[in-house]
Amino acid sequence: MKKLKVGIFGATGMVGQELIKVLYKRKFSMKKLRLFASSRSKGKQIKMPDGKSITVEDVAEVNYKELELAFFAIGGGWPEEQVPKAAEAGCIVIDNSSTFRYNDNIPLIVPEINPNTIGDSNIIANPNCTTAIAAVPLYQIYKHYGLKKVIISTYQATSGAGSQGMVELEEQSRNYLAGKKVENKIFIHPIPFNIIPHIDKFQENNYTKEEMKVVWETQKIFGDKNIQISCTCVRIPTMRAHAESIVVETKKPINPEEIREIFQHTQGIEVKDDIENNVYPMPVTASKKFNVEVGRIRRSMVFGEYGLEFFVCGDQILKGAALNAVQIAEQVLKQRFK
Amino acid sequence: MKKLKVGIFGATGMVGQELIKVLYKRKFSMKKLRLFASSRSKGKQIKMPDGKSITVEDVAEVNYKELELAFFAIGGGWPEEQVPKAAEAGCIVIDNSSTFRYNDNIPLIVPEINPNTIGDSNIIANPNCTTAIAAVPLYQIYKHYGLKKVIISTYQATSGAGSQGMVELEEQSRNYLAGKKVENKIFIHPIPFNIIPHIDKFQENNYTKEEMKVVWETQKIFGDKNIQISCTCVRIPTMRAHAESIVVETKKPINPEEIREIFQHTQGIEVKDDIENNVYPMPVTASKKFNVEVGRIRRSMVFGEYGLEFFVCGDQILKGAALNAVQIAEQVLKQRFK
Repeated sequence: MKKLKVGIFGATGMVGQELIKVLYKRKFSMKKLRLFASSRSKGKQIKMPDGKSITVEDVAEVNYKELELAFFAIGGGWPEEQVPKAAEAGCIVIDNSSTFRYNDNIPLIVPEINPNTIGDSNIIANPNCTTAIAAVPLYQIYKHYGLKKVIISTYQATSGAGSQGMVELEEQSRNYLAGKKVENKIFIHPIPFNIIPHIDKFQENNYTKEEMKVVWETQKIFGDKNIQISCTCVRIPTMRAHAESIVVETKKPINPEEIREIFQHTQGIEVKDDIENNVYPMPVTASKKFNVEVGRIRRSMVFGEYGLEFFVCGDQILKGAALNAVQIAEQVLKQRFK
Repeated sequence: MKKLKVGIFGATGMVGQELIKVLYKRKFSMKKLRLFASSRSKGKQIKMPDGKSITVEDVAEVNYKELELAFFAIGGGWPEEQVPKAAEAGCIVIDNSSTFRYNDNIPLIVPEINPNTIGDSNIIANPNCTTAIAAVPLYQIYKHYGLKKVIISTYQATSGAGSQGMVELEEQSRNYLAGKKVENKIFIHPIPFNIIPHIDKFQENNYTKEEMKVVWETQKIFGDKNIQISCTCVRIPTMRAHAESIVVETKKPINPEEIREIFQHTQGIEVKDDIENNVYPMPVTASKKFNVEVGRIRRSMVFGEYGLEFFVCGDQILKGAALNAVQIAEQVLKQRFK
């Protein structure tokens, strides 16, 4: 198998760090791995899982012609400017930002669902975390029973706002418990022992962008604009792994036992649905796992035999970001470098 | 107005303590207030908001004939045995437990909705916290547009499991932040920085009893078994005030602006829906408030003009328990002692 020259952009961030771990864990076929970040991280040594260190380079000094594959996990205007440059230089870019996701010419990929749409694009978009986590089980329902309606309420971890989100939750929880003033910089309101039904900017239709991402992206990944999707996104005081309460209406009657069986054989899903033993998806168990936990599978009380309700929990830094990006890279390697 | 001889059973518990505060705050017409609890609290002095103290009596030694109105906020088999005894002795009982809620002969009351069903029953049931909080806005939708479907996902505070739930969250959060082992006694799994999609016992249909309570009770309070309701109940690491993400399908087209206006004039509701200024319902703002916060009001993406989505947050110890009980008592006073 061909060994690729790979770059990670935003290598010092939370997703960048996970990308390194996932590339090594999945033994991704690399000739060389280079790490890029903003100039203030230049020269920093980052230790790899094999013990060797790699020196961080300044993203402003990159020559994209030296790379075959680049992971972009960097914000602040970089993707808009740099991703097209890299792509023009012949480097295949897997971009974690939302910049290119809604462009009809750019594939948006969940490898378990639509790897065949990668085509020959040099830019490939990685979906939003909330979308990717729900998409894996939803697609099995879509494939076997059809999907008319999807209603989602989320329970999103603080690390969805970057590692600083987690730090704020920890530090401010300490303040709260010590009876000190609780402050908020990363979040719009104090997050310890609170929840905030507002993630990303409000849109004209009074949904947040985070909520609309789930609608736009799920329709694009499934290639079906007729699926009606609605979402309420809520930030909660957990560290890692987003949970989602999902209710669907299907086109054909759906049997909870049958879909549980299907989920049990679906790559990327760990069924955790043994209620007699209090087993169901939870952030503490789903964190740092590649698979998305799926449980609380039951017939919907509102859609009857055409409905299903279930609860998912997945690591939003892994399936919601780094893992999905590496899975896309594996597809790229298979499809484009064979 | 007649002054009543009132007793609180379970006076040392969290709901009992709130009952005292609410009775005083709303200046409930009392000739005498007596406090009852299990024998181990006998003799304890409890300070009233007016500065005077009341000595706790042993519930086993009560003579119900000396009381006209009793609030039961006590568990452990007491309601089954004691509520009928009190009622037979001529005392009107407002019971906070689920024991009598599903009995067709016992009224289940949210005073903003069905005060006319109190009738002459000496036992009146107070609904579950999750039901009561959602019912106030839901009823306005029901009344003006009709309700076909209600889909709820909850974000329930630890104090829903009693004050010990809150203590466990605090103590175990401290342990977590100190890198110590996190334990759980009150909750089925560790609750700090985690969520648990499981409250009360699982039923045969794979819903929890907490989830089914919302279905059974809402239908009973609204007097309409045709409303299709489904609920996913999740315990989250907040102290007080339950939040609920609610999606409804109505019979008539519903306009978000119009229902917002209606909510603004509905007793028991505080509209918090100014997204430009980041104002929406949250546990930290809804705690210790009598009114239920309602916000994130918007057209549903799945039910179109026949659908609405919104977010509520209400103090489950107040509207979800003590406040609703006192509001029932006010109705009883008006209807039965005039």
